[in-house]
Amino acid sequence: MKAARYYGARDLRIETIPDPPAPGSEEVTIDVTWGGICGTDLHEWTNGPSTVNKPEKPHGITGDHAPVSFGHEFTGRISALPKGYPSDGSFKLGMPIMVDPRIVCRKCSACTNGMDNICPDWGYIGLNGGGGGGAGFSERVNVEMRMCHPLPDDGSVDLDSVVLCQPLTVGRHALGSSGLRDYTGLNVLVLGGGPVGLAVLLNLRAKGFGMGLSGSVFVSEPTAKRSEMTRGLRLSDDIFNPMTTNVAEECRSRTNGVGVDVVFDSAGAEGAMLAGMESLKLRGTYVNIAGWKKPFQIPMQYAMFREIIIRFSLGNNDNDYREVVEDFIAGKFKGAETLITRRLFVEDLAEQGLEELVRNKDDHVKIVATWRKDMLERATL
Amino acid sequence: MKAARYYGARDLRIETIPDPPAPGSEEVTIDVTWGGICGTDLHEWTNGPSTVNKPEKPHGITGDHAPVSFGHEFTGRISALPKGYPSDGSFKLGMPIMVDPRIVCRKCSACTNGMDNICPDWGYIGLNGGGGGGAGFSERVNVEMRMCHPLPDDGSVDLDSVVLCQPLTVGRHALGSSGLRDYTGLNVLVLGGGPVGLAVLLNLRAKGFGMGLSGSVFVSEPTAKRSEMTRGLRLSDDIFNPMTTNVAEECRSRTNGVGVDVVFDSAGAEGAMLAGMESLKLRGTYVNIAGWKKPFQIPMQYAMFREIIIRFSLGNNDNDYREVVEDFIAGKFKGAETLITRRLFVEDLAEQGLEELVRNKDDHVKIVATWRKDMLERATL
Repeated sequence: MKAARYYGARDLRIETIPDPPAPGSEEVTIDVTWGGICGTDLHEWTNGPSTVNKPEKPHGITGDHAPVSFGHEFTGRISALPKGYPSDGSFKLGMPIMVDPRIVCRKCSACTNGMDNICPDWGYIGLNGGGGGGAGFSERVNVEMRMCHPLPDDGSVDLDSVVLCQPLTVGRHALGSSGLRDYTGLNVLVLGGGPVGLAVLLNLRAKGFGMGLSGSVFVSEPTAKRSEMTRGLRLSDDIFNPMTTNVAEECRSRTNGVGVDVVFDSAGAEGAMLAGMESLKLRGTYVNIAGWKKPFQIPMQYAMFREIIIRFSLGNNDNDYREVVEDFIAGKFKGAETLITRRLFVEDLAEQGLEELVRNKDDHVKIVATWRKDMLERATL
Repeated sequence: MKAARYYGARDLRIETIPDPPAPGSEEVTIDVTWGGICGTDLHEWTNGPSTVNKPEKPHGITGDHAPVSFGHEFTGRISALPKGYPSDGSFKLGMPIMVDPRIVCRKCSACTNGMDNICPDWGYIGLNGGGGGGAGFSERVNVEMRMCHPLPDDGSVDLDSVVLCQPLTVGRHALGSSGLRDYTGLNVLVLGGGPVGLAVLLNLRAKGFGMGLSGSVFVSEPTAKRSEMTRGLRLSDDIFNPMTTNVAEECRSRTNGVGVDVVFDSAGAEGAMLAGMESLKLRGTYVNIAGWKKPFQIPMQYAMFREIIIRFSLGNNDNDYREVVEDFIAGKFKGAETLITRRLFVEDLAEQGLEELVRNKDDHVKIVATWRKDMLERATL
């Protein structure tokens, strides 16, 4: 089969590799239809190998290291079932599947206590090997059945956009990481209108909160393109440009001087963080979802003297996935498909996908790729 | 009256100043019996004026600035009531009082929502003026009635140690700042066996948790003297010396590999913080009570990858004070009196109090001072 293989920074090769082996008793083989480029992929492209394992430190569960088949956001259809799999089993040949690509140990205290997102050995098919040699940007991949979320095949679900479930789970997880269960009446500020920030907004709405329901929802986003897209989604009461607007002052003036209840940081930049902290009410909650290139230094003038609560949200877990796919099927993420700003062939992934994101990051939210001409033609119609 | 007046770093002068004016309608005059030296006082002594206002920036509520009468932990007896105060009123001449020395605006959203500890205009009699010119290290001071906690005068309460209520409220506040209400069965690590760390331990026990009740209670303290004192109080299951022991490994091995539920940081040092983060269980809670000289930089390998919750605890509020004085009267802080490691005359405060703490900080927890020979003789008997 064909596969995009990651060797290191700016070294992605389209290669022909062996097909995955026949699926094990708890696995299926998936023919991939769509794979998405994640921010982590972009970081690997420019600065990796980082999450991808180097040869001297193979992954703890898969034992794999670079080069690896690339791509950890993907959907497809079942093309092989285990030998002897009953014909009345839950999975069928041809069934569309949204894949949860995570690799976790299922044994540690995190995994056995509903915190599988922070399993110390976590990894992803598409970054850390596994998958029977395949991944999201290869033609086929083996996946554990428990990581397969079946989708209806009756036209009710947009199978060309369902790949967005993976980034959406990151937003779902963040909503829970705040420690808040009910956002009704709460005022929210999201730092950054990129894929993760939008995922937070889309999840707020999917859960029945969001604009007009959770008090006010504000976004701080410096680029015109992303602001425009965020505005188009109609998920937030207002979008502030932090380069020209004092975000904290705006948040205060629109909340009777109190400040917002919760900030979601998907920006990971010091200036945004300081504005976020300053926008919070006394004892408000700051949820960091972002990766930080520079150290995250707590500004004591806010944290200590306002007794801010700082929480962290990493990735997604079984429950986030179950909920998001369920909500996607139920149509609660309508409009999310506009997040896909480019569709292309996997063969063009390096130049028109990854390098395009380096050059024109702000023009994009999500770029997805396929091997199949029919898929690309259909979806771009 | 005599007063210890703070002019600046290492400049404390014993002066004769006017007595406080006759108390206003909501005030009383207190004849101070005992005043305690706080860590903030020590910081002012070595590096101030810092919390004390400089002339160019007087305090927002009192309008005062350096020089100020010094001392914000104090107790005494009522020596004057407002003109016309009814003889059947709550306060009586001679009544022993534990004073809450805080100055807060009572108008802002913090004050009107039970968060008066984070009133943006907070200050203390003894650092920021007020008090009719007096403070904890002057002979007399005027205090608002609402800040006066009456004490029984029947010998049931140790009036020579009740001044400890002020630092104890800081520990009480921290227990609430964790967001946890019930510590039963929880494992706790306290970083630092100084006054604030011990206050946390004493409050755990006073609230019916603590050693043997809240799972295990551990302390990390590098100095022999403080370790010995902490051990003597019998409030913790074990005390680790972080210079010779891997605190995180110990905490894990004694909690079935899980880690502690909550860390209270009264140390404010990077090494201790890192050990504390590493000692926490997944999604554990880190409560910072310490002031930080260096920036508080979040170690992402713990915070993000274990989804640690970081909370901050500043000072004390009305409720903390009410609860602590109540518990002190009820005898729930028995043993706390051993925290007083030296008693002296206010005249000797600079050399035998503040400089002694600079020279031999680890030999002390709390140094208290009085003007009165009878008090000093009685208490040191």
